[in-house]
Amino acid sequence: MVKRTRLLLRRPKSTKALNQPPGTVTYIGRKESAETRLEVIDYNKESFERYTSTRPEDAFDFENENKTTWINIDGLSNTAEIEKLGKYYNLHPLILEDIVNTNQRPKIDEYQDFIFVVVKMLYFPKEATSKTNGNLVSEHVSFVVGEDYVLSFQEAGGDVFDGVRERLENGKGRIRGNGADYLLFCLLDAIIDNYFEVIDHMGDQIEFLEEDLFQKQPSDDITFQIQELKRTILRIRRAVFPLREVLSRLEKMDTNLIQEKTRNYFRDLYDHITQVSENIEIYREMTWGLMDMYMTTISNKMNEVMKVLTIIATIFIPLTFIAGIYGMNFEFMPELQWKYSYFVLWGIMLMVFVVMLYFFRKKKWL
Amino acid sequence: MVKRTRLLLRRPKSTKALNQPPGTVTYIGRKESAETRLEVIDYNKESFERYTSTRPEDAFDFENENKTTWINIDGLSNTAEIEKLGKYYNLHPLILEDIVNTNQRPKIDEYQDFIFVVVKMLYFPKEATSKTNGNLVSEHVSFVVGEDYVLSFQEAGGDVFDGVRERLENGKGRIRGNGADYLLFCLLDAIIDNYFEVIDHMGDQIEFLEEDLFQKQPSDDITFQIQELKRTILRIRRAVFPLREVLSRLEKMDTNLIQEKTRNYFRDLYDHITQVSENIEIYREMTWGLMDMYMTTISNKMNEVMKVLTIIATIFIPLTFIAGIYGMNFEFMPELQWKYSYFVLWGIMLMVFVVMLYFFRKKKWL
Amino acid sequence: MVKRTRLLLRRPKSTKALNQPPGTVTYIGRKESAETRLEVIDYNKESFERYTSTRPEDAFDFENENKTTWINIDGLSNTAEIEKLGKYYNLHPLILEDIVNTNQRPKIDEYQDFIFVVVKMLYFPKEATSKTNGNLVSEHVSFVVGEDYVLSFQEAGGDVFDGVRERLENGKGRIRGNGADYLLFCLLDAIIDNYFEVIDHMGDQIEFLEEDLFQKQPSDDITFQIQELKRTILRIRRAVFPLREVLSRLEKMDTNLIQEKTRNYFRDLYDHITQVSENIEIYREMTWGLMDMYMTTISNKMNEVMKVLTIIATIFIPLTFIAGIYGMNFEFMPELQWKYSYFVLWGIMLMVFVVMLYFFRKKKWL
Amino acid sequence: MVKRTRLLLRRPKSTKALNQPPGTVTYIGRKESAETRLEVIDYNKESFERYTSTRPEDAFDFENENKTTWINIDGLSNTAEIEKLGKYYNLHPLILEDIVNTNQRPKIDEYQDFIFVVVKMLYFPKEATSKTNGNLVSEHVSFVVGEDYVLSFQEAGGDVFDGVRERLENGKGRIRGNGADYLLFCLLDAIIDNYFEVIDHMGDQIEFLEEDLFQKQPSDDITFQIQELKRTILRIRRAVFPLREVLSRLEKMDTNLIQEKTRNYFRDLYDHITQVSENIEIYREMTWGLMDMYMTTISNKMNEVMKVLTIIATIFIPLTFIAGIYGMNFEFMPELQWKYSYFVLWGIMLMVFVVMLYFFRKKKWL
Amino acid sequence: MVKRTRLLLRRPKSTKALNQPPGTVTYIGRKESAETRLEVIDYNKESFERYTSTRPEDAFDFENENKTTWINIDGLSNTAEIEKLGKYYNLHPLILEDIVNTNQRPKIDEYQDFIFVVVKMLYFPKEATSKTNGNLVSEHVSFVVGEDYVLSFQEAGGDVFDGVRERLENGKGRIRGNGADYLLFCLLDAIIDNYFEVIDHMGDQIEFLEEDLFQKQPSDDITFQIQELKRTILRIRRAVFPLREVLSRLEKMDTNLIQEKTRNYFRDLYDHITQVSENIEIYREMTWGLMDMYMTTISNKMNEVMKVLTIIATIFIPLTFIAGIYGMNFEFMPELQWKYSYFVLWGIMLMVFVVMLYFFRKKKWL
Repeated sequence: MVKRTRLLLRRPKSTKALNQPPGTVTYIGRKESAETRLEVIDYNKESFERYTSTRPEDAFDFENENKTTWINIDGLSNTAEIEKLGKYYNLHPLILEDIVNTNQRPKIDEYQDFIFVVVKMLYFPKEATSKTNGNLVSEHVSFVVGEDYVLSFQEAGGDVFDGVRERLENGKGRIRGNGADYLLFCLLDAIIDNYFEVIDHMGDQIEFLEEDLFQKQPSDDITFQIQELKRTILRIRRAVFPLREVLSRLEKMDTNLIQEKTRNYFRDLYDHITQVSENIEIYREMTWGLMDMYMTTISNKMNEVMKVLTIIATIFIPLTFIAGIYGMNFEFMPELQWKYSYFVLWGIMLMVFVVMLYFFRKKKWL
Repeated sequence: MVKRTRLLLRRPKSTKALNQPPGTVTYIGRKESAETRLEVIDYNKESFERYTSTRPEDAFDFENENKTTWINIDGLSNTAEIEKLGKYYNLHPLILEDIVNTNQRPKIDEYQDFIFVVVKMLYFPKEATSKTNGNLVSEHVSFVVGEDYVLSFQEAGGDVFDGVRERLENGKGRIRGNGADYLLFCLLDAIIDNYFEVIDHMGDQIEFLEEDLFQKQPSDDITFQIQELKRTILRIRRAVFPLREVLSRLEKMDTNLIQEKTRNYFRDLYDHITQVSENIEIYREMTWGLMDMYMTTISNKMNEVMKVLTIIATIFIPLTFIAGIYGMNFEFMPELQWKYSYFVLWGIMLMVFVVMLYFFRKKKWL
Repeated sequence: MVKRTRLLLRRPKSTKALNQPPGTVTYIGRKESAETRLEVIDYNKESFERYTSTRPEDAFDFENENKTTWINIDGLSNTAEIEKLGKYYNLHPLILEDIVNTNQRPKIDEYQDFIFVVVKMLYFPKEATSKTNGNLVSEHVSFVVGEDYVLSFQEAGGDVFDGVRERLENGKGRIRGNGADYLLFCLLDAIIDNYFEVIDHMGDQIEFLEEDLFQKQPSDDITFQIQELKRTILRIRRAVFPLREVLSRLEKMDTNLIQEKTRNYFRDLYDHITQVSENIEIYREMTWGLMDMYMTTISNKMNEVMKVLTIIATIFIPLTFIAGIYGMNFEFMPELQWKYSYFVLWGIMLMVFVVMLYFFRKKKWL
Repeated sequence: MVKRTRLLLRRPKSTKALNQPPGTVTYIGRKESAETRLEVIDYNKESFERYTSTRPEDAFDFENENKTTWINIDGLSNTAEIEKLGKYYNLHPLILEDIVNTNQRPKIDEYQDFIFVVVKMLYFPKEATSKTNGNLVSEHVSFVVGEDYVLSFQEAGGDVFDGVRERLENGKGRIRGNGADYLLFCLLDAIIDNYFEVIDHMGDQIEFLEEDLFQKQPSDDITFQIQELKRTILRIRRAVFPLREVLSRLEKMDTNLIQEKTRNYFRDLYDHITQVSENIEIYREMTWGLMDMYMTTISNKMNEVMKVLTIIATIFIPLTFIAGIYGMNFEFMPELQWKYSYFVLWGIMLMVFVVMLYFFRKKKWL
Repeated sequence: MVKRTRLLLRRPKSTKALNQPPGTVTYIGRKESAETRLEVIDYNKESFERYTSTRPEDAFDFENENKTTWINIDGLSNTAEIEKLGKYYNLHPLILEDIVNTNQRPKIDEYQDFIFVVVKMLYFPKEATSKTNGNLVSEHVSFVVGEDYVLSFQEAGGDVFDGVRERLENGKGRIRGNGADYLLFCLLDAIIDNYFEVIDHMGDQIEFLEEDLFQKQPSDDITFQIQELKRTILRIRRAVFPLREVLSRLEKMDTNLIQEKTRNYFRDLYDHITQVSENIEIYREMTWGLMDMYMTTISNKMNEVMKVLTIIATIFIPLTFIAGIYGMNFEFMPELQWKYSYFVLWGIMLMVFVVMLYFFRKKKWL
């Protein structure tokens, strides 16, 4: 059954890395099979070079003076390759652990020669329609930003960074003329832009459920859909909220890896992430309200059922009683012999019927 | 259907600007067609000049020494014009982006030569009666305040600033004698004054719903009205709360763009916005309580329905049973031959009836 | 209807002052007609003088050296008189605006020569019994405290300050020997003492409603009483909570208008206001719990109704069926001819009846 | 009735001290009649002296050099005696007011020569069984701690300090070798130890109510018991939470009245009070959940009642209808003459009955 | 009964240590009988020695220069032995009290020569299946960390530290080459790794209950399971939340007991504990939502029951009435003599039946 699958997928596989010595680089995500793919982009204001490989060693030759190098690594399960890269760039084992630990929450760590940033890329898979809750995918992305290079690590290659690649290739905008810090900004900006879409998607789902409740024919598992929605919102919150601190630190950090002019851009991102957070909080409140709406919907339905029963019973039970009276077999019942009593009785019954209808109308039950 | 329309309008159109390089000036609001209109007011204690145009270039000539210039721009969709203005006043591309990005939350940014302020103007459209929830309109307004000029950017021209214009023209009050910072205060004051009206409107709606619930005939879609009310309150909150920080910063900012004597006025505005915030919180609590009220209303109704059913059934089912007894066809039923049994039976039935009525009266069901 | 009136009174008349230039002294309260009355008390350790007037000019003569002057102004609608006083004491227009703006929340502003304090006086009108929710009256009171004078502005003269007047006249306690700061303390103390009474009143009302719910015969509009109670508590909160900051500032303020020895007294008041706040929070929680109590009360009642119906129906419907069987007109029904079948049947029916009773007793429904 | 009494006792008698000049020493507690009793204990490492009296003057002689003096005063209603003591120890009138003001919340005030501490002693009276909610008694206790003396003021003498007295007398532990600050620690420790018992008592009551709800036979006034429990938890919270600040200040206070080595002990107490606070919060959440549990219990019961009604009605109403058919008096009803129709009908009825039973079993109603 | 047992076990035995002089070393846990067992591990980069004993004196000989010593003590009830150890290592009586006081919450205390850390080890006993709530075991663990030694105190020996022991023995990883601070990190890491498993277990239980509710056949005591779940989550929270401060202090503490390079590792642990905390909060929200889900499940069931009753009653009560009419014994009832009236009546009845069915189908009750 569909439901069951969804339930099983929910469980975070956080226990896989248990009982390992700390600093062990173990991938705990779900995309084991994926091969590690490297893409190296080397650019400055004048030139642009691009190269893909599956061996990290190929990337080392690409460092040229006066150029900014962006190395994008897709696929984290092949930890040996990542450790090689780590050795070359002199990354602490704990950083390597965080790069592949998909449970790691968004954070920023400052080192002597580089900045280490972890964020979550959120998206609903393409096939998810606005009706189903879909399974929000939260992908683990890390950045190592040095003076003239950016390393980006993704679980699976997506098309989120395509816009940045294109701008780099075409030399559109300010991107080629600025350094590694501006590249970091562009990549983060691409990720955060995606949050808006996720947020919109959530808004659609809330509206969809509200519409459902309004039509008074909510599907049977609506409480589970609402519970699922809550869960998704809480997961988004967990991915988004720590980012505020990351961006605020990027703006104010005392380092010369971030140029003065780029800080404005990070402040702008901070504003965006605050907008996203505010929307999350609103959707959260709306979602929590859905359960109450559903409860009133159920109660209203019950009321309607009860009214039908009460109207029918209240009209016919007394009439049946009257009929029962004249079904008795007493020898001395004067009415039985009267000529018109049957018709008079029908009259009385009709009257009772009409009075009852009037009573229910007055009570607005009809 | 009316309802449907409202649902569709709810969705924030935040995704329009997606996949644009950062710093791209893209208008994402709903008022595409509007033409950009400029109004230039140039004044000092002695003189007052006013001029409208649709070309930003016209505004550049108006800067005179010893005068304060207020340039009000209506309509944000024509981004090319706004970029021209931005170039002339040396505004950073990110500021221009924020000016036209109607999703930008209220904020204040301090620059060397000017202060940049974003606020939200809130109003219910005129046609909205106090009964319908109306659609709260949240209009994006930005200010750039230099030493002797104020630029104000609005999505659509409204009449909110008319009072300020009039006071400027008539030279009433302190407004002509003070500089650009005091003008900013007056404009913010006009916007915040409007919040009080919005807040009052919300109060009316809550009262209206409470009255409805009190009359025990809430309309069918009351849960949706309540949910909508919540949504509106949350939206107002989002527009109002960040303003506290904006005003507090305006009061305490370390700049000489704000004169010492004007700071008192900003503190006063801060007080006002705190009042508004407190009212929002109260209305919030009241609104959240409405759902509970509705729930008890439904349950009370159900109780009433059940009582009617129970009274009727409890009275007539035993009586029908008694009638049924004497409708049996046994050959040996001594009562059937007795002369007065029919009348005795009526007496018994009446007694049962009276006892039941007494029982229900004692239970306060009647 | 009583209810309606209450609903209409709820609305804060905050919009009256709209569209006025800032700093305009406009009274927005409800007590338009009241005449402005001045009372001047001039005292030091040895002497005591008291004088009342309706013209502020009379007050100006009373300032003597080595004496503390308390000028109490009752009635805020006559703004012209207040502006005169403001000019004499050199008060900023924004202060005058706050003095008459009854929406102004409690606050403290420090100026060169004086301190400006706004508080709310809360009381239930005398005629309000402990049963009705009454209409909590929140009166706007402001103080201007200079080196040797206190100005107090009230919407309407009340008897709250009578105790202070008396102590001044009799020279009881420390009051005559201390300066203007101690007088301010005494006046605030009188106001805060009243909060305790208001709080007690709220406690009585909560108890009253709980008692009502316990008797299981809550009045019809109990949800509205609870909602009203919430509203009142939220209003009290709004009046009381900002006072904590006011008093804390009075204690710690870096000014020589407050003598060192008086600061202890303000700390004491701070303690009192914290007690009041804590009580408000407790009453708040209790009130929010009342709705749940009411909900269970309704549900319990419904249960009781359902039980009566079920018992009656479950006993008599099967019996009626049995009677119905022997009311059939088949020609071949052996039981009909048996001599004792009628009496046997009665026995069976009695047995069914007893078994049912036993069943319901076992289920604890009887 | 028991209930009523409880209701009346709830009301805090906070209004008694109203309209008194500030600094008036007025006892507002409930133990008016109690006589003030003094107990003086004078000790150092070598010696131990103990003396009781009812006149404060007797205590003054007991101050010896190199000895620590503990004066314990029981009974606060005799304010004249307390004022005498206050004069001797040079206590500010506001301190005396706080000593007898049983509404005063826990706090700490630092003076030149002594520290003033107010705490609440909490206990359930002995006769309260774990079943009844009992009436939590909150007793007002204050301490004045000088360099070589401790004054402790209690509303009523209890046995809480007996352990300390004993240790002093026997010279067990560190108590005799340390000064007044350590004595204060021991007394506070005795009070806080009692909180654990109160907390345990609350835990028992919650469990008791849960058990009740589990047995599905909650007593009639369970909502009131829950409401009462909430009230008690809120009262405990009010007594305990401010103590955290008191103890944290005692640890960090910049004074030489607290020796360095004693500070560790206060930190330890701080830990204890945090534990108590955490438990209160947990019990709070559990208690708030009880109401929901009760609600589901009621609804489940209703479900059960409805099922019985539905089963009986659904089985017998159709059967009665069938019997009714053959009770009709039409002249031409072929079945009436058939020989076996009566028995066939019984067969049909039995079948209907069995089918119904099967249906209900399938629906798991039986 | 199982339930009862669980109820009794809930009670924290916090009162056992009551009325003891402070600083008394009293074990208040549940594992009285356990013997105190010592395990001494002495290691440096080159060597590894291991020794177990039941007498603390044996441990004292093991301190060698240039080696790190880890002494693990299992079983806290034998306080005499622990006091011996305390004397040797010069531990303050309050520390010894905290070591055996299983109520002590997680904390860190810094001393001259060592750091004292208290944490909680959480686990579900092996026999607990994912279905039952199990009884979360919270074991009290303390660490004393000096320059070259770590003392660890456990209530009962578990296998949580086995991984660390193994790594020490095999000399795998960095563990042998680093000092006592790194050992502390490894031990804390082992404990925190276990939290993830506990958290997963909670997630499973929530899913299990959701599944139950989805199947619409929740077990009878589901409200108690939910209440129990809440309680467990609150207990975990209490164990986990204070740890954040402990770890943050370990990272930032101004001491040379923690080497610079180890601080990174503590920061990493801090990240882990934040992840755990966030998960707890999410599970908390989900659990609190379960009660609402259950409530809607009950209401839906009631709706279904009511529908069955209403359908049956609404169809057969009018039919029975019709049959009752022609069961009357009036002499003049023309229909009785008509030849086909019986069959016509059947036709009418069938029609009524069909119309009713159609009505219910239209209302979607069938």
